[in-house]
Amino acid sequence: MNRGLVSRSKKIGMPPGTLVHIGQQKLDVQKISVLDYDESGVHEYEIEDVRGQCAGLKEKPAVTWIRVRGLHETEKVKALGECFGLHPLVVEDILNTDQRSKMEDYGDYLYIVFKMLYCGVDRREVTQEQISLVLGPTFVISFQEAENQVFEPVRERVLSGKGLLRKLGPDYLVYGLLDIVVDNYFSVLEKLGENIEVLADRVLDKPEPSTLREIQTSKREMLFVHRWIWPLRETVSMLGKRDSALVKESTIVYLRDVYDHTLQIMDAVDLYREMLSETLDLYMSTVSNKLNQVMTVLTIIATIFIPLTFLAGVYGMNFKNMPELEWRWGYPLFWLVMVVVTLIMLGAFKRKKWF
Amino acid sequence: MNRGLVSRSKKIGMPPGTLVHIGQQKLDVQKISVLDYDESGVHEYEIEDVRGQCAGLKEKPAVTWIRVRGLHETEKVKALGECFGLHPLVVEDILNTDQRSKMEDYGDYLYIVFKMLYCGVDRREVTQEQISLVLGPTFVISFQEAENQVFEPVRERVLSGKGLLRKLGPDYLVYGLLDIVVDNYFSVLEKLGENIEVLADRVLDKPEPSTLREIQTSKREMLFVHRWIWPLRETVSMLGKRDSALVKESTIVYLRDVYDHTLQIMDAVDLYREMLSETLDLYMSTVSNKLNQVMTVLTIIATIFIPLTFLAGVYGMNFKNMPELEWRWGYPLFWLVMVVVTLIMLGAFKRKKWF
Amino acid sequence: MNRGLVSRSKKIGMPPGTLVHIGQQKLDVQKISVLDYDESGVHEYEIEDVRGQCAGLKEKPAVTWIRVRGLHETEKVKALGECFGLHPLVVEDILNTDQRSKMEDYGDYLYIVFKMLYCGVDRREVTQEQISLVLGPTFVISFQEAENQVFEPVRERVLSGKGLLRKLGPDYLVYGLLDIVVDNYFSVLEKLGENIEVLADRVLDKPEPSTLREIQTSKREMLFVHRWIWPLRETVSMLGKRDSALVKESTIVYLRDVYDHTLQIMDAVDLYREMLSETLDLYMSTVSNKLNQVMTVLTIIATIFIPLTFLAGVYGMNFKNMPELEWRWGYPLFWLVMVVVTLIMLGAFKRKKWF
Amino acid sequence: MNRGLVSRSKKIGMPPGTLVHIGQQKLDVQKISVLDYDESGVHEYEIEDVRGQCAGLKEKPAVTWIRVRGLHETEKVKALGECFGLHPLVVEDILNTDQRSKMEDYGDYLYIVFKMLYCGVDRREVTQEQISLVLGPTFVISFQEAENQVFEPVRERVLSGKGLLRKLGPDYLVYGLLDIVVDNYFSVLEKLGENIEVLADRVLDKPEPSTLREIQTSKREMLFVHRWIWPLRETVSMLGKRDSALVKESTIVYLRDVYDHTLQIMDAVDLYREMLSETLDLYMSTVSNKLNQVMTVLTIIATIFIPLTFLAGVYGMNFKNMPELEWRWGYPLFWLVMVVVTLIMLGAFKRKKWF
Amino acid sequence: MNRGLVSRSKKIGMPPGTLVHIGQQKLDVQKISVLDYDESGVHEYEIEDVRGQCAGLKEKPAVTWIRVRGLHETEKVKALGECFGLHPLVVEDILNTDQRSKMEDYGDYLYIVFKMLYCGVDRREVTQEQISLVLGPTFVISFQEAENQVFEPVRERVLSGKGLLRKLGPDYLVYGLLDIVVDNYFSVLEKLGENIEVLADRVLDKPEPSTLREIQTSKREMLFVHRWIWPLRETVSMLGKRDSALVKESTIVYLRDVYDHTLQIMDAVDLYREMLSETLDLYMSTVSNKLNQVMTVLTIIATIFIPLTFLAGVYGMNFKNMPELEWRWGYPLFWLVMVVVTLIMLGAFKRKKWF
Repeated sequence: MNRGLVSRSKKIGMPPGTLVHIGQQKLDVQKISVLDYDESGVHEYEIEDVRGQCAGLKEKPAVTWIRVRGLHETEKVKALGECFGLHPLVVEDILNTDQRSKMEDYGDYLYIVFKMLYCGVDRREVTQEQISLVLGPTFVISFQEAENQVFEPVRERVLSGKGLLRKLGPDYLVYGLLDIVVDNYFSVLEKLGENIEVLADRVLDKPEPSTLREIQTSKREMLFVHRWIWPLRETVSMLGKRDSALVKESTIVYLRDVYDHTLQIMDAVDLYREMLSETLDLYMSTVSNKLNQVMTVLTIIATIFIPLTFLAGVYGMNFKNMPELEWRWGYPLFWLVMVVVTLIMLGAFKRKKWF
Repeated sequence: MNRGLVSRSKKIGMPPGTLVHIGQQKLDVQKISVLDYDESGVHEYEIEDVRGQCAGLKEKPAVTWIRVRGLHETEKVKALGECFGLHPLVVEDILNTDQRSKMEDYGDYLYIVFKMLYCGVDRREVTQEQISLVLGPTFVISFQEAENQVFEPVRERVLSGKGLLRKLGPDYLVYGLLDIVVDNYFSVLEKLGENIEVLADRVLDKPEPSTLREIQTSKREMLFVHRWIWPLRETVSMLGKRDSALVKESTIVYLRDVYDHTLQIMDAVDLYREMLSETLDLYMSTVSNKLNQVMTVLTIIATIFIPLTFLAGVYGMNFKNMPELEWRWGYPLFWLVMVVVTLIMLGAFKRKKWF
Repeated sequence: MNRGLVSRSKKIGMPPGTLVHIGQQKLDVQKISVLDYDESGVHEYEIEDVRGQCAGLKEKPAVTWIRVRGLHETEKVKALGECFGLHPLVVEDILNTDQRSKMEDYGDYLYIVFKMLYCGVDRREVTQEQISLVLGPTFVISFQEAENQVFEPVRERVLSGKGLLRKLGPDYLVYGLLDIVVDNYFSVLEKLGENIEVLADRVLDKPEPSTLREIQTSKREMLFVHRWIWPLRETVSMLGKRDSALVKESTIVYLRDVYDHTLQIMDAVDLYREMLSETLDLYMSTVSNKLNQVMTVLTIIATIFIPLTFLAGVYGMNFKNMPELEWRWGYPLFWLVMVVVTLIMLGAFKRKKWF
Repeated sequence: MNRGLVSRSKKIGMPPGTLVHIGQQKLDVQKISVLDYDESGVHEYEIEDVRGQCAGLKEKPAVTWIRVRGLHETEKVKALGECFGLHPLVVEDILNTDQRSKMEDYGDYLYIVFKMLYCGVDRREVTQEQISLVLGPTFVISFQEAENQVFEPVRERVLSGKGLLRKLGPDYLVYGLLDIVVDNYFSVLEKLGENIEVLADRVLDKPEPSTLREIQTSKREMLFVHRWIWPLRETVSMLGKRDSALVKESTIVYLRDVYDHTLQIMDAVDLYREMLSETLDLYMSTVSNKLNQVMTVLTIIATIFIPLTFLAGVYGMNFKNMPELEWRWGYPLFWLVMVVVTLIMLGAFKRKKWF
Repeated sequence: MNRGLVSRSKKIGMPPGTLVHIGQQKLDVQKISVLDYDESGVHEYEIEDVRGQCAGLKEKPAVTWIRVRGLHETEKVKALGECFGLHPLVVEDILNTDQRSKMEDYGDYLYIVFKMLYCGVDRREVTQEQISLVLGPTFVISFQEAENQVFEPVRERVLSGKGLLRKLGPDYLVYGLLDIVVDNYFSVLEKLGENIEVLADRVLDKPEPSTLREIQTSKREMLFVHRWIWPLRETVSMLGKRDSALVKESTIVYLRDVYDHTLQIMDAVDLYREMLSETLDLYMSTVSNKLNQVMTVLTIIATIFIPLTFLAGVYGMNFKNMPELEWRWGYPLFWLVMVVVTLIMLGAFKRKKWF
């Protein structure tokens, strides 16, 4: 998959605000659930007919959390957008799953978009899912590409009434969702970090071209993670600084906490990238060190035997008149010379610290 | 072609505001078409005599879109500039096709210049075309170097009356043009991205010097693309922040959307550049790995056979008195020694993890 | 240990403000001591029953310094937080020992968190401990993970009444604690600096793969130190700029002094990192220089003897008709040719500056 | 020449404002010409006696352009400075030819200093000349180190009355001079750019150490060019933002144009530097690729022949009892074995993609 | 010496403001001289008893310049600080000679600290000395570590009454001292620059490992110089922007001049660092080029002779039945084959551009 850019070719030339789902369809059926709650109680139900069922929801005083999973039925998303008075460009952004994380203030609602990360079982490939949140005075709409369980703990806290969720407004719900997303980043990074340590050990143990390839895959994975997480930092910071009436004073201190966590995440990503660079350097130097060793052995062997072989060749010549051949101790003398030359050479190499 | 700088030699020493077309002539005949429209209707016609036909256009209340294709007939461009009261430096910038993307506010009109990118059929070379826009209270003038179909969808939307174009003013038309240009960047980058993945595969499959050269060509291409797109980001940002009366409040949210797209584009360019660097690293390490292998094989072969050859040479000597030669089992013993030495050496190499 | 990120897995999905100790338990028993002092006297005692003993402490006019060592008994920390009216998120941050250094203003108290560094005996590994400070109008609470003696000199100055500590308020006490932490950084960096110089000497003396590995370990250590110290700079700077009523005018000049020290520390860290990079370069060039030498020796020996051996082989052939073999001076002539060829070659190598 | 720093040794310890010419004397005789003009006419004359002839010039309402070429006669420059009321530090800066480009506002006059660049005939070495401009309410003084023709076109436009020069004030004259200097940068960079392309072609054709040296010379040249041009960008920007009464509103749009050109220049310099880095990389990889090839050939030849030579040596041994030697088909069999071994080895190399 | 950090170990745990001299003692006896001057006259004398002789100095209307050389007698420095009402932290900073250059405004006096640089005779090692200045309404106190003659020219100008020094206040004296320090930087950098050019020549002439080591020493020296000079830029900039009553309007233009000089200095340092990097690259490529040459020669020789030697070995075999040996022209034919094979190989190498 070309992960740099999602293909937008089908959109060129269309008027802005044209609603096309850009991205992979990750779910068979789109699901829309509603969670209506206030301090006194909770009511959960599914929505089939968007226009009919959502009509009065915007005005209801209780907090309404609408969870949309799956984006391919653009018509429903559009109807939802119209019910809640969303700008066509917001609906377009929700459907185009190659957004950069951002926060936009449309006066009577905020639009927040960011990436959720998932780690594959083999700890190597990281996949992402775009999540959009719309925060209104009494409602939150969350859009996910797939049916992931990431928001389940929040839903359960709402249902059970534990914590502050039921007591506070929709801005606190948005905080809760952001918080769980960022906590999830921690667990993804932990797994990537473990993989990096495994790689470092393998480099020290037995460096192979395949290890190199894995280091480079990890580096690329980190590059993507960095690119996905980096703009979130700014998004959360903007949200925490809002004087928008939609984010209450009491929630801001919680958002600042999420912001601190994104800083820690970015620190960890930077650290892992540097550790991968170091592991790569280590690989390179281990390999080049081995080559050095190989070459040194070759040189020692060759340098010792080449002159000896020459001498053996000399006494294999068929000249008529070679007095040494006739000497009584010629042959033993030959061996003596061989041994002496070898010892001298070994001494010289030793002095040059070749081994 | 020297793509770093267009030659300006012919301009040195000329008084500022001298109108010379700097760049290649890309079209035989310059064409000027007008599109006059408001909510009620559209009128399209060609202009031959600029001074005569453009006289009253500036004051007409309907939106007037003047499309100029080709810049070599500087006289016509100058006449157009005078009709609409453009500053001589603006006309000069329109004609000099080596501008950096920028936005300039001249009070009663805005001047915007940027680069359109085209991808060659072989996906490797990217060519650019300078496009200038002048946005006045009731008119938009667009200047292209060549007859490209890039603005065709906008023209068709104006003619058909689909979308908001006919309902809104010239600032929305400028947005429409910018939007289609940025969408075009996406498709160019998509093609470049595909090429990068092809290169990465080839490096893994069979790395050759020609692959290296293509990686470096791609890097240079990305360098140019980066240089052409980068200043556009700022241009669009300035346009979206304008409190100029020429850009209406309602259009600003659309311009912000274009701005987000330029951010995505820059992200993708950065990503591709990093991916190319990685591919280059991969090439280098693959090649050096192969050299390592070659050297190791050489060393193993040479290290084993050099001593053996020496011994063979010894027993080829013609000394009178070589008792081994007379031994009954001399020859088989020789082979036995050879085999033992070889096995010892292979064991040592194995222990050093040479193969 | 994965030093990039402390595992947070156990926290995912929990409501914010849930108090879990994240980090290693470094102490068997948690200790809480109180130091109550003003200009007239000092009173020191241990606290067992937090809720009971801390009840009125917040309102007492004398300066109260509560020292908590060990964080695993979260219940006590929580009780302490409630006694002094700390926000649940502050208590959560105190217990999570993977904080980035920061300063947060909660109106009636400031929360400061940073890392204390310790150098192992072998000067190589640096360990860290998270220290949290809470500064209120009349109290300071310090949280340490372990029972380290780092704050002992401050405690002794309070007990003995030397210096300004007893005369000034809790903000000056916070300054005193920060000052001793930063002074400690100096001593840690000194030891790391000595180790770097030792490494540089070893590279010059006898570069070995193990030296390389130590250089890389040192680089990683510096990476961690940089990451731990860097945010402190900003923390101290914010503290020094505070117009919070909690930090008095007279203390700000002292905080500026600590800030200058953190700048010196960061300068030194940067310097050490550059010195390590240089040492690495030196290692690389020394090793590659040795390889050059080895290859040159091999080439000289091989280049001289290969042709000689060929000639010796020629005159070892058994052709019927080889007139040279019959010459009277054939053999001496052979040696003469050998010597002449060798001398010519040596001369050529000399001219090419090969040795 | 040490181009990093002009020697200032002779100035150490002197009181500030001491006038010493620092730099090379590039002209035998210092020339001072005056151009007095307004819309009605022009008057040009040489000045010999500075104090006598310059006395009333400052007050004359017509625009006065004083061109000083050559700086070694410090006395005259000092006299000129006194006539026009320049601060001693300005006169000192004019004489010290190692200034960084800058703009300084002294209230009733502006001081601007920058570097003029010249390209040697062989396109390789770039030389610079410091040019100082003083802009007063009715006068412009330009100081050049040598008699270069760079300002000639401006002088001719003043003399001929073409363009706006005669109609507008001294600030427009300063613009004209800056414009011609920046246009000159374009032509210098064009030549450097051509040289870079020549180098790139030579690297592809036949890479030699001398090519490498030229690439590095070019890089250094670019380093100097960057250093000389970079601060000009800021100078022009400051000039264009001035609300000084000396720069009129109408001139500011022209200065903005010059500013845009300096941005283009800096873009081009950055591009050329990246292109040079790429050319260097290309050289390196071409050379290392050749070494790879050489080593591979050596290995193939050696790996094939070393075992064969060993076998030939074996059958050249003089053991009594070597049955193979007596076989009838021994010799042909030997050749057969040789051929088979060679073919097997070639096959193995082919499979490993060594050639 | 560990130049990264001066040892502060002896200070850990001490209360702030404790006065300990940190640094080397560079002088046997501490000297304190006073220079009392106004427009009418000068009075110079030594101070022995600080408390007695300095009592009324602060209030005297004439400018008082107190020069302290040597810092080890901390008691005297403390007494001086008390006489002139310096904050204890300022006195502490004066005595700790590892300060970063900075400027601090204490309301009724400014504290400025920076590094003086000296170049060793062999042009290689640069040493530094910390200089502190205290600027009050009518006095300047300068603290040096050693008895260097760097301020001598200023003292002489005060004594002789040349220049503006006697006419203007203490802020102009501070300017004079800063100016001479920065001028001194120029001469130090000039010498370092010359050394760099010498190194570059040696690399081109005969690159040896010792040259490499010197390049690296020079790089490290530049690193220290950069670190010492860099913060001065900001110090001078802050001083020039002061609206403190202590720095008069008329002096600010002079300080701006010093600031420009520090910019030039930093430019030169950056340039030298880049030049050193280039020299290093040149060294590396020269060395690797030589290795290439060596390997190519080895390969040519070996590739030619290895097959020939094999053939010679073949005809040295003792097979019974070798028909070639019996041929009449066998031996000459052998030589013919040798020559032909050699020529073919040389041709192939030539075609591959190996030499």
